[in-house]
Amino acid sequence: MSAPLADQLDIVIPTIRNLDFLEEWRPFFQPYHLIIVQDGDPTKKIHVPEGYDYELYNRNDIERILGDKAWAISFKDSACRCFGFMVSKKKYIYTIDDDCFVAKDPSGKPINVLEQHIKNLLTPSTPFFFNTLYDPYREGADFVRGYPFSLREGVPTATSHGLWLNIPDYDAPTQMVKPKERNQRFVDAVMTVPKGTLYPMCGMNLAFDRELIGAGMYFGLMGEGQPIGRYDDMWAGWCTKVICDHLGVGCKTGLPYVWHSKASNPFTNLRKEYKGIFWQEEIIPFFQNLTLSKTATTVEDCYLELAEKVRKGLGHIDPYFSKLADGMVAWIEGWRMLNPPKSA
Amino acid sequence: MSAPLADQLDIVIPTIRNLDFLEEWRPFFQPYHLIIVQDGDPTKKIHVPEGYDYELYNRNDIERILGDKAWAISFKDSACRCFGFMVSKKKYIYTIDDDCFVAKDPSGKPINVLEQHIKNLLTPSTPFFFNTLYDPYREGADFVRGYPFSLREGVPTATSHGLWLNIPDYDAPTQMVKPKERNQRFVDAVMTVPKGTLYPMCGMNLAFDRELIGAGMYFGLMGEGQPIGRYDDMWAGWCTKVICDHLGVGCKTGLPYVWHSKASNPFTNLRKEYKGIFWQEEIIPFFQNLTLSKTATTVEDCYLELAEKVRKGLGHIDPYFSKLADGMVAWIEGWRMLNPPKSA
Repeated sequence: MSAPLADQLDIVIPTIRNLDFLEEWRPFFQPYHLIIVQDGDPTKKIHVPEGYDYELYNRNDIERILGDKAWAISFKDSACRCFGFMVSKKKYIYTIDDDCFVAKDPSGKPINVLEQHIKNLLTPSTPFFFNTLYDPYREGADFVRGYPFSLREGVPTATSHGLWLNIPDYDAPTQMVKPKERNQRFVDAVMTVPKGTLYPMCGMNLAFDRELIGAGMYFGLMGEGQPIGRYDDMWAGWCTKVICDHLGVGCKTGLPYVWHSKASNPFTNLRKEYKGIFWQEEIIPFFQNLTLSKTATTVEDCYLELAEKVRKGLGHIDPYFSKLADGMVAWIEGWRMLNPPKSA
Repeated sequence: MSAPLADQLDIVIPTIRNLDFLEEWRPFFQPYHLIIVQDGDPTKKIHVPEGYDYELYNRNDIERILGDKAWAISFKDSACRCFGFMVSKKKYIYTIDDDCFVAKDPSGKPINVLEQHIKNLLTPSTPFFFNTLYDPYREGADFVRGYPFSLREGVPTATSHGLWLNIPDYDAPTQMVKPKERNQRFVDAVMTVPKGTLYPMCGMNLAFDRELIGAGMYFGLMGEGQPIGRYDDMWAGWCTKVICDHLGVGCKTGLPYVWHSKASNPFTNLRKEYKGIFWQEEIIPFFQNLTLSKTATTVEDCYLELAEKVRKGLGHIDPYFSKLADGMVAWIEGWRMLNPPKSA
C-alpha cells in the first residue's frame, strides 16, 4: 500500500473507547504516527491495536501540558481533537472519527484516504474562478476554455475536506425526518470552495496543512459546561475559511470518502445542537460579512483579530461568545507555547 | 422515453450543415419543437431528419425580422444561436451543438439530457452557502449539518450548464498541449455556482429559463467582421452570472453529460481566441468587481445598465467593447420587439 509523506503527517483520533476500528485501517494507517486524544474519564485504559506507533493524551495530560490554558480544550466532546493538532510537530494532520471505516470506490477497490488527501493538499487550489471540470490538476482534467491563464497557477491548499458514504453528516432534524437515508452516491470529484463562500466543514474525515492553517483549527468550546455541541467542526470551518480567503490559500472538498458506520442518536444530537441551529442564522452572516485587516498576515494574527470580532460582533447573542473569544485567545497562547517560532 | 415539459421548451440549434446528428437524439428530442438557426450561406438547404417539428431561420430571416437590429446577431459564428432564444415563445430553452451526441452513464444507459436539465431547472439553487453533498434536492441527498435552515428553501434556478464526455471544452493552447486528452470522468453531481463566483459557461449543452434570464443570454459580437471568436458563450456566462447574483436566482452546473464527438481545429481556434485570451484577464476582474444598481430589478434593466458599464469600463481595452455595448443595447431592443410585456 502507498503511504505518502509518512514522516510528515500525524493522524489525530479523539476517542472514548478502544480503537478496534484501526484493525480495518491497518494497511493504510500503520505507517503513520497516531496522536490519540482520550476524552472523558482519564483513568480508563484505551486499547490500541498492536503495531501502531502512537502517543496518547488524556485529560490529565492536557491539564499538565497546557496548565491555565487547558480550559480552552473541550471536555466530553470530540472537539478535544484540536489538542492533537497543537501538540503535533508534523506539517500535515489527518483527523478521523473512530466510527469511520474504509470505503470502496465504484469498482470495489478500498479507498486509500491518505493518498487522496495528500494529493489534494499537494496540488494547488483555485478559489478565484470556478472550473466546471472540477479539480484541474487531476489526471485527465485541466482548466476549461475561458479560465483565465493568470489564475492557472492556483494557490497553496490549506485544507482537504473528505466526505462519507453510508451515514451522511446530517443535523438532528434531518436525521429525524430521514432516518433511513444513506449516502450511496460516489461523486468522483474534488473541488475548491470558492473565495467568499462558506461551507460546512465536518471533522470526521479532514486533512490540513498545519503550517498554512493549523493555528486556526480550534474546535471551540463544546461539551461539558457549554451550551452547545456538534458545532465544533463548523466553528473551525467558518474561521479557517475566512482566514484562508484572507491569506489567499485554498480549501478543497470532495474525495476521499470514508464509510461512516453509524448515526449518532438524533435526540441527543438535538439537545446538543438546538441553540446552534438558532445561533448559526446570525453567525453565518457575521462570517460572510467579516473582513480582516491587511496587517494580519499570519494565521495567528488573523485568529486573534477574529477573536475580538467574535467578542464584539456575536456577544449580543449569548455570553457564551465572550467566553469563546477568551477560548480563542487561550488557544493561540497554547499554540504559541507548543509551537514557538522556528527562529527562536 | 420521458419528455418532460415538451410544450414548454424549445431546442435551439445553430448549424451550417445537415442535422443528421438528430437521428441519434430522436428518442429524446422528437417530442420537442426545434428552432434551427442556420449560419452562413442562406441559400444552402439544411436537411432536418423526418418527423421533427421545427422552424428554421437563415440570415435573410434574421435581417427581415430584426431589421436595423440584425447586425447585433453574429454571422459565421455559433453565437448566432441567441437569435433562437429571442424568437422562442417558450419558457425554457435547451441549446446544443450539432457535434454533440447521446452520452452514456457508467451503467451504460443513454443519458436523457433534457430530463436532467429540467430537473435542474425545476429544483431550487443554493448560491449563498456551499453544500458539501452537492445538490441537496436530488434523491438520496439533503443539506448537511451546519447548513443554515433559513437558506434551505433555495432560490429559483435560471440556468443549467451541462458537461461533456470525450472531447473536453479546452481553449486552443490546452488543445495544442494535450491533443489526446479525453474526458472520461463521469462526475455524478449537480451543484450551484456560488454567489459572487464566475464560471466559464459553455454553450454546447446549456438550458435556461427564458423568463428568469433570457434577456441576458446574448452571445455577443463574434465571427465575421469581429476581432474575436469562441468567447460568445463566455460573454453570456459572465453577464448572466452577475445578473443572476444581483437578482437572487441561481446557476447550476454538472449533469447531464453529452458526448462531444470531435475537437475543433486548434489552429483556427487560436486565431479566433488569442485576443480574448489577453482581454479576459481584464474582463474577468471587471465582472468580479461589478455591482448593479438596486433600482435594476428586471433582467432587461440589468442588461442595459451592464451595457453602459461595459462601454465605460472596458472601452479602453479596444474599440470593440464600445461596439459590443451597442450590440447589447440593440439585443435588448430586439428582445423587447419580439417579447413585448405580457400585459400589453
